[in-house]
Amino acid sequence: MTPKTMNAIVKTHPGPGLALREVPVPTHSPNEVLIRIRAVGICGTDLHIEGWDAWAASRIKPPLVIGHEFVGEVVSVGQNAQHIRPGIRVSAEGHITCGHCPFCRTGQGHICQTVKIIGIDRDGCFADYMMMPADNLWPLPDAIPDHYAAVFDPLGNAMHTVMAAPPAGKSVLVMGAGAIGLFAIAIAKASGAALIIVLEPNEFRRNLAKQVGADLVLDPTQPRVEDLIRQQTLGLGPEIVFEMSGHPSGFRQAFRLLRNGGHICLLGIPPGEVPLRWADDVIFKGATIHGISGRRMYDTWYQCQTFLLHNRLTIDPLITHILPAAEFQRGFDLLKEGKAAKVVLRWGVE
Amino acid sequence: MTPKTMNAIVKTHPGPGLALREVPVPTHSPNEVLIRIRAVGICGTDLHIEGWDAWAASRIKPPLVIGHEFVGEVVSVGQNAQHIRPGIRVSAEGHITCGHCPFCRTGQGHICQTVKIIGIDRDGCFADYMMMPADNLWPLPDAIPDHYAAVFDPLGNAMHTVMAAPPAGKSVLVMGAGAIGLFAIAIAKASGAALIIVLEPNEFRRNLAKQVGADLVLDPTQPRVEDLIRQQTLGLGPEIVFEMSGHPSGFRQAFRLLRNGGHICLLGIPPGEVPLRWADDVIFKGATIHGISGRRMYDTWYQCQTFLLHNRLTIDPLITHILPAAEFQRGFDLLKEGKAAKVVLRWGVE
Amino acid sequence: MTPKTMNAIVKTHPGPGLALREVPVPTHSPNEVLIRIRAVGICGTDLHIEGWDAWAASRIKPPLVIGHEFVGEVVSVGQNAQHIRPGIRVSAEGHITCGHCPFCRTGQGHICQTVKIIGIDRDGCFADYMMMPADNLWPLPDAIPDHYAAVFDPLGNAMHTVMAAPPAGKSVLVMGAGAIGLFAIAIAKASGAALIIVLEPNEFRRNLAKQVGADLVLDPTQPRVEDLIRQQTLGLGPEIVFEMSGHPSGFRQAFRLLRNGGHICLLGIPPGEVPLRWADDVIFKGATIHGISGRRMYDTWYQCQTFLLHNRLTIDPLITHILPAAEFQRGFDLLKEGKAAKVVLRWGVE
Amino acid sequence: MTPKTMNAIVKTHPGPGLALREVPVPTHSPNEVLIRIRAVGICGTDLHIEGWDAWAASRIKPPLVIGHEFVGEVVSVGQNAQHIRPGIRVSAEGHITCGHCPFCRTGQGHICQTVKIIGIDRDGCFADYMMMPADNLWPLPDAIPDHYAAVFDPLGNAMHTVMAAPPAGKSVLVMGAGAIGLFAIAIAKASGAALIIVLEPNEFRRNLAKQVGADLVLDPTQPRVEDLIRQQTLGLGPEIVFEMSGHPSGFRQAFRLLRNGGHICLLGIPPGEVPLRWADDVIFKGATIHGISGRRMYDTWYQCQTFLLHNRLTIDPLITHILPAAEFQRGFDLLKEGKAAKVVLRWGVE
Repeated sequence: MTPKTMNAIVKTHPGPGLALREVPVPTHSPNEVLIRIRAVGICGTDLHIEGWDAWAASRIKPPLVIGHEFVGEVVSVGQNAQHIRPGIRVSAEGHITCGHCPFCRTGQGHICQTVKIIGIDRDGCFADYMMMPADNLWPLPDAIPDHYAAVFDPLGNAMHTVMAAPPAGKSVLVMGAGAIGLFAIAIAKASGAALIIVLEPNEFRRNLAKQVGADLVLDPTQPRVEDLIRQQTLGLGPEIVFEMSGHPSGFRQAFRLLRNGGHICLLGIPPGEVPLRWADDVIFKGATIHGISGRRMYDTWYQCQTFLLHNRLTIDPLITHILPAAEFQRGFDLLKEGKAAKVVLRWGVE
Repeated sequence: MTPKTMNAIVKTHPGPGLALREVPVPTHSPNEVLIRIRAVGICGTDLHIEGWDAWAASRIKPPLVIGHEFVGEVVSVGQNAQHIRPGIRVSAEGHITCGHCPFCRTGQGHICQTVKIIGIDRDGCFADYMMMPADNLWPLPDAIPDHYAAVFDPLGNAMHTVMAAPPAGKSVLVMGAGAIGLFAIAIAKASGAALIIVLEPNEFRRNLAKQVGADLVLDPTQPRVEDLIRQQTLGLGPEIVFEMSGHPSGFRQAFRLLRNGGHICLLGIPPGEVPLRWADDVIFKGATIHGISGRRMYDTWYQCQTFLLHNRLTIDPLITHILPAAEFQRGFDLLKEGKAAKVVLRWGVE
Repeated sequence: MTPKTMNAIVKTHPGPGLALREVPVPTHSPNEVLIRIRAVGICGTDLHIEGWDAWAASRIKPPLVIGHEFVGEVVSVGQNAQHIRPGIRVSAEGHITCGHCPFCRTGQGHICQTVKIIGIDRDGCFADYMMMPADNLWPLPDAIPDHYAAVFDPLGNAMHTVMAAPPAGKSVLVMGAGAIGLFAIAIAKASGAALIIVLEPNEFRRNLAKQVGADLVLDPTQPRVEDLIRQQTLGLGPEIVFEMSGHPSGFRQAFRLLRNGGHICLLGIPPGEVPLRWADDVIFKGATIHGISGRRMYDTWYQCQTFLLHNRLTIDPLITHILPAAEFQRGFDLLKEGKAAKVVLRWGVE
Repeated sequence: MTPKTMNAIVKTHPGPGLALREVPVPTHSPNEVLIRIRAVGICGTDLHIEGWDAWAASRIKPPLVIGHEFVGEVVSVGQNAQHIRPGIRVSAEGHITCGHCPFCRTGQGHICQTVKIIGIDRDGCFADYMMMPADNLWPLPDAIPDHYAAVFDPLGNAMHTVMAAPPAGKSVLVMGAGAIGLFAIAIAKASGAALIIVLEPNEFRRNLAKQVGADLVLDPTQPRVEDLIRQQTLGLGPEIVFEMSGHPSGFRQAFRLLRNGGHICLLGIPPGEVPLRWADDVIFKGATIHGISGRRMYDTWYQCQTFLLHNRLTIDPLITHILPAAEFQRGFDLLKEGKAAKVVLRWGVE
């Protein structure tokens, strides 16, 4: 039987820090289901919320249960969600879209203008239980283990990015090897990228990049990096860039290096404004730029699941830590110190 | 018989101004043909060269016959161009590509890195005669009159831009109604754009924009322009933007106004660097940006010809002046004063 | 107040014919709304059901209220459809999809394998009232008159077909000028098709084809038709074919005529099997073939509405008859005699 | 120094058989180069010519040097081919296109209507020396060994087929595992296909299919094959079919199995006419069909080279035999007996 209260990781007030608190178990509305959480992933966004940066201060309204990457089991369903069978294991799309706008009605829910995100705009998944609209559920086959299922959300960001410029037989530059950048490397490799070059300042992440398929991994602070990249790409630069860093100087470098006629997919979020030499780096190049936000609903989810089910993706090395939920602070600290890629917290599964 | 010398409009030395001079008629190499010019168009680029701005000073090596938009007749052919029949009327692609690089060998000659442009990197068409590689010729059907044939080059820039984001049934914003912007309006209208909004500060051009198919033409210096555009586009902004101005503030405005999931095609060349709010105006929007350079060889040429042959394009009002070549200075002045859209010079055709 | 019974056009038993009957007004389930019908369109499918051909005999389970093209007003809403405001004027997508299969979850509901179609698999719209799932509603702006709104369904079939191979600047051959073929001509014209050739044996329809934008309309029973078509298309054949006839010999002709590299969109349903010379007519040509079914949900609906709202489509001549519902049999007869294109029945609006 | 005569494998007269003959070394025209052959591949087309089937009888005009898959060295160049350096190692595109038609001028030379094919319409490469237009040459990096370089032509057919429906993360069915079908399996695997199912009656080829990446290889003559395929593909059928067999019953089966919304690429050439149930197997499915002919010039060549240079393709097991040219008849026999996939003949390289 579902208890009345539960443990949750809560942003209790405006300001840095998170606390493990006992809070009421949510009760679901007719279109929703209640999920018992089994495992969650810690995202860079969660670090922003924990650290209470300018973005967090402007967006988050405490108290809030944070977290948006998860796997769990459906424990009960609302009256309009009777097609969902309690007991099934699920992850879910954390972007809750309006369903009625022109974007939602044409298969583009990922750019719905009134989206609500779990763990940001409403209570999230770092808790024993969470509510989700039935439409957002992603039922999972048994063959997908919990620690993979818990990271479908960021894996999906990477999948959305890579599928916007399919890399089979092409040279690829990945800017930034954070968790999503690393997932993108694994996906690009599995999708037939002929050459994968990675720029990443953190050595720990550079080593992971190599493990999941990068051919050449460079520290951007070293000299002659651009020469080396051009040398490896017929003197023409990479045909595809996946910009996963959001770092302004990396951002500009990505455009500078891109081959004529190339594609650049932008997932990393640069702060403020970034200037570009549009004439030389975009227009005369005949470049194509793709802004990438969220995950395609639900094309991206099918893609992630299919690659995993058929053992095409090497992501095991990227889930660097699996910790009990109670040790969440250690997970946050490891990530802040650049000593982890993806940290998964086991939740309520003894 | 071909004479030994000819009249030509020449940039005689570094610095402002152009001169009508008598120069030798060029002799063709084996792969080239000699063309007697019938009519030419004056491009914005020619104005830059005439005025000798920073770009011109860095790129142009006088003495140079300028001009790259033309129609003429083949008068003689090189030994490797025997498949060209002397006497045929032609225009030509003015971008002379290497033919051997990966871009050229995959149908992307428009982004060849060693392109030479007539009237810029080698002698151009503002002359009684000009040489062209046989491969660049565009033989013209009789039904295309000279003043249309003379402007296939800029019409092709506009066609390339519009075809990169086909506007049938969509809302379109055109930034800037210079000659190419105006051509783009006519093409977008002919291609089924549902709504065409134009931002242009010059009243003369705004009137032309209406004549060739714009639904709503606005002066960007007026207040509440952005509100008005959003109002006309369901509050969501235009689905497609054709950026033909190169003006930094217009450039930024274009990205701000673009609808989520929209496409923006960049043809106008902004000077130096332009900063952008990438997060809000590109990434979260899921926008797609297309850098547009030159014309597709020769898809764009077929498209221009087909639209014209079947009378689908309204471009007559845009060829605002047809002058004798000797009055070229008046043509340049009209353009500089914003009192003309496209000026065609009749050349050697009594 | 909603009455208990209503008039409806009913297939009362297996066999030819239809009857106007008094039947109970349906009561809606929680996810549905009740609509009072204002006008309906008669489709070729309705003629098959009326005439009780082999397809109808295998698919239709009488008694059944037929009809699937309509416009009406919402009169009441189910408890889960409270976001729909009673009184609004709507049409609706008549394909009721499962919502949960891989097709539905990736924006491809038009190929859902368990679709139910109104007027075929459940009661339809030839009645005073009809029930529809709230998700299928298409709210209509005031500027769209009833007789246009009533035919969004077949107009959408045509839109889906044309948008699968956008015709701007291209030569198009339309096989068959029934109602949907005629809509396709109007849409292709509005979308910038450079040349529209139509093959249609019925003279009445050939005349309509000219009125809505065809450039050349031919009777396929006349001699030398294929020569004439090749002559008009540079000797190469049309770049795009919209196959709207389903006629086996027209079908084969379409493939024979198609230009190398061309696109052919198949909407017409040929009976049984049709053989093709695959080597010459598809493979060596490098042709692309698109099977077209239903309407894209809801891209197609937006496209139809946008074209109509901005007065880009000429479809008035195609709604050849607007009759009172009581005269439905005359509408059916006119269509069977080839003397009508689209017949609209006014329903319950005095 | 180039000798006056050479050895060549010649179809000497209409009728079955081939002969090794001494014939004059060809002399090149101004746009051509003379190539000394190092190795060639035997294609199924060569078997048709050897066996003198109906197609061969209608197309081939003896005497003819056959063969179109090769690698060699440039020994001398025509006066208009001075940019080619004698001594370089090359393969070449064997489809010699007109260069001037609308297809050639828009990057679609593979569907040029006046193409001439080496070894079919003019002398081919089964000889000590061969002439090729300079434009058709494909210069090879040292890292590509001769036995790979000799099969760029059929590898390119497979690449063209697979790249028409990129398989990353998708389920793929390959109909027929002849040499090109086997190459397609290797390419699909390298490009991230999630599941590759192969139907092939010959056991020798089925074993090769497994070696180069097929997940499930079935004998089409066994019972319940279709059930098994559906079972492996969520009950929905494969998302992509590569039809490489040309076998009429396989052809029909491919369409029957294809998933709704799927893509089918047709490379195999079915004889005569093949009937299809268009309604159920194409139209209601919303299927897309791609006719595939030749290789994209030269996109396909870059793709082949890139995959090979970066060691992404497993094709070694497919080059089952490398024989001296003098033993060509054994190569032909092995292929006819179904005991070889690709046979390479070493030519004049001691």
